[in-house]
Amino acid sequence: MASAESTRTRWAGWIATSNDVTGQFLAAADQPGFVSLAGGLPAAELYPVEAVAAASVRALERWGGTALEYGPCEGFPALRKAIAERVSLATGGTFHAEHVLLTTGAMQGLDLLGKALVDPGDLIVAQFPTYLGALDAWRPRMPRYERLSWDPRHPNTDEQLRAARFVYAVPNFSNPTGVLVPRDQRAALLERVARSGSWLVEDDPYLVLQLDDPVGPGLLELDVAARGDRPYDGPVVYCGTLSKSIAPGLRIGWMVGEPGLIRMLALAKQCSDLSSSMFTHAVALELLEADVEAAHVPAILACYRERRDAMHDVLVAELGEWFTGDRPSGGMFFWLEARRGAIDTDALYQRALREGVAFVPSSVFDPHGELRTAMRLNFTRNEPDVMAEGVRRLARAIRGYLSEET
Amino acid sequence: MASAESTRTRWAGWIATSNDVTGQFLAAADQPGFVSLAGGLPAAELYPVEAVAAASVRALERWGGTALEYGPCEGFPALRKAIAERVSLATGGTFHAEHVLLTTGAMQGLDLLGKALVDPGDLIVAQFPTYLGALDAWRPRMPRYERLSWDPRHPNTDEQLRAARFVYAVPNFSNPTGVLVPRDQRAALLERVARSGSWLVEDDPYLVLQLDDPVGPGLLELDVAARGDRPYDGPVVYCGTLSKSIAPGLRIGWMVGEPGLIRMLALAKQCSDLSSSMFTHAVALELLEADVEAAHVPAILACYRERRDAMHDVLVAELGEWFTGDRPSGGMFFWLEARRGAIDTDALYQRALREGVAFVPSSVFDPHGELRTAMRLNFTRNEPDVMAEGVRRLARAIRGYLSEET
Repeated sequence: MASAESTRTRWAGWIATSNDVTGQFLAAADQPGFVSLAGGLPAAELYPVEAVAAASVRALERWGGTALEYGPCEGFPALRKAIAERVSLATGGTFHAEHVLLTTGAMQGLDLLGKALVDPGDLIVAQFPTYLGALDAWRPRMPRYERLSWDPRHPNTDEQLRAARFVYAVPNFSNPTGVLVPRDQRAALLERVARSGSWLVEDDPYLVLQLDDPVGPGLLELDVAARGDRPYDGPVVYCGTLSKSIAPGLRIGWMVGEPGLIRMLALAKQCSDLSSSMFTHAVALELLEADVEAAHVPAILACYRERRDAMHDVLVAELGEWFTGDRPSGGMFFWLEARRGAIDTDALYQRALREGVAFVPSSVFDPHGELRTAMRLNFTRNEPDVMAEGVRRLARAIRGYLSEET
Repeated sequence: MASAESTRTRWAGWIATSNDVTGQFLAAADQPGFVSLAGGLPAAELYPVEAVAAASVRALERWGGTALEYGPCEGFPALRKAIAERVSLATGGTFHAEHVLLTTGAMQGLDLLGKALVDPGDLIVAQFPTYLGALDAWRPRMPRYERLSWDPRHPNTDEQLRAARFVYAVPNFSNPTGVLVPRDQRAALLERVARSGSWLVEDDPYLVLQLDDPVGPGLLELDVAARGDRPYDGPVVYCGTLSKSIAPGLRIGWMVGEPGLIRMLALAKQCSDLSSSMFTHAVALELLEADVEAAHVPAILACYRERRDAMHDVLVAELGEWFTGDRPSGGMFFWLEARRGAIDTDALYQRALREGVAFVPSSVFDPHGELRTAMRLNFTRNEPDVMAEGVRRLARAIRGYLSEET
């Protein structure tokens, strides 16, 4: 059956605006000895494998077939309730199950926000540079972007905030920059966005990864404090996850917000996949009730602190001549900027892959792809000596790049 | 923080085109004693709870942290391979892991098809009436629809098929009509679509639910036979699931197709949720390797056969005066059409809810919402006496409707 001229090579318009950086570093990572400093991956050797096995057995004993059922698209009711209680406790606010939507990782929450709120050409005001996954999630909705400014001396205009479908912020250890936004800047942004009538999305995957001092209140907590005790009905939409504190392979994420918005996000989810896996929800509930995080998170933090410090030393020693960046106080990433903007990190990326190391070049964190002088390096995944080898390869790639440039 | 005029009540445009039938019957189902004949739900008492618990423990012993990891967005490699082998065996074709994308239920596969292939206004040629979940999945892409004709005497025109982004077909026990499409009509459609150069989507969730005679070859199998032994590169995109043969709460679905398309669907999935749960994939692999379906499916079929026959008798006795429909030879649904089109099933639906019974009215299976003279009734979920009570309530609702009409 030969086909005539085929329409089978035509894709939806947004596909042409996507990039294949993720695909490239995933493919490269298959080579033996390759060092990936690219992904935002936890230390896999710390995943609580036995606790998950025990939780699976308990969940099926407790819930039977209910844990194997199509569930409500909002998620397993008992886990929604547990997350509502967790958020109430963390913020001092009043949250019920109706404030919570369970998602396939926090990533799906971002997808659903775009799906429920954004039509082509709509405005998103986003922290810049912007998490690649968020840009990917919203690409099919074809929004336009303006930059969020945290600086109260140069704030976004009221007009800009009013026009936005939502404002996207990562106050704790932003991806990619690792920046921790100070409390006064958080409060000032919240005040402005609340006045504008737009939604304020607080993406908070790294909350538990506080390696130095406590981070202080987030946007949702600040808003709860301003609104008082009634069931939450404010503008903040909070995205959380178990991917960093337990394990990403369960794909447990949640969105917390005003119940009317949660209903629309649930409708968008129903149209995406009917629901996430009730089985993983029932397992996650057992893990939370057994307080696995309390045992697990301190071990993670000790490991990541050591890796961050080791990585910092090797970055200063090996790359300090060409790149500069802060030692992050949490999260998973170093963000290095080329001194005097002298290195095109897109070009460097290709050369680094050939040297057997991957990072994430800054251009993919820019909605317009123009930021080409920085890079994101992960410090949580690999053991210190592997990271050091990766950084030495990166130094070789830089030398090669510079010798070719001049 | 009082907000001025808020933009927080504005949703993306497609939301206004959705309906709340699913929400209505889910809400109604919470009432004590309510009988739902609406959902496409398996008999929950048959879920293999102990087999899943054992598989969970084995999966974590076998794979350790790998089963709790972010995985490739295409899915857990060993399960992709197992599905490729399953499809090779079922069709006689040559399928590798690269032909397979694992999805959160088959539903997500439909969502990804829309995301990767459809821009607003693009044409989908779809079997009519059309699975509500497919219409929901594609709503955010804002396509237009034309009807698929299975009748070789009145086929879709070549121009129409060429213009379609894809053709959507459910040959085995279509949802909602339960119709089994005869082999010659399948072959004729395949031939025409292959010639047109468009994709042909074969949605096949009910394959295992063959209650009478074997169904014969599907579209993918027919295309494999025509193309011969080389790795599959034809136009058929096949959607399968473990939701009917094991349990829906694992959310294990798959798409099988030409590798270039699978890559684009995987990119769309990466933008949706990064990946499904590797843990559920590892558990599903154990269930398949232990051949849980071989033990489980015969019990399901025996149960569903009995329920179908009981439901058929009660439908004829209680509703035969007003509705007519075939006894389905598989799947999960009866499709009843009002004799002489005399009953508006949207109006009947509201009355039925008040009588304590739900069905799905035909309008939601019509992209334009105009088909209002039929209804879908599920026969797999409830025990026969519960179904009988539901049908008696439905008869009361019909009598009430007719007495008010005249």
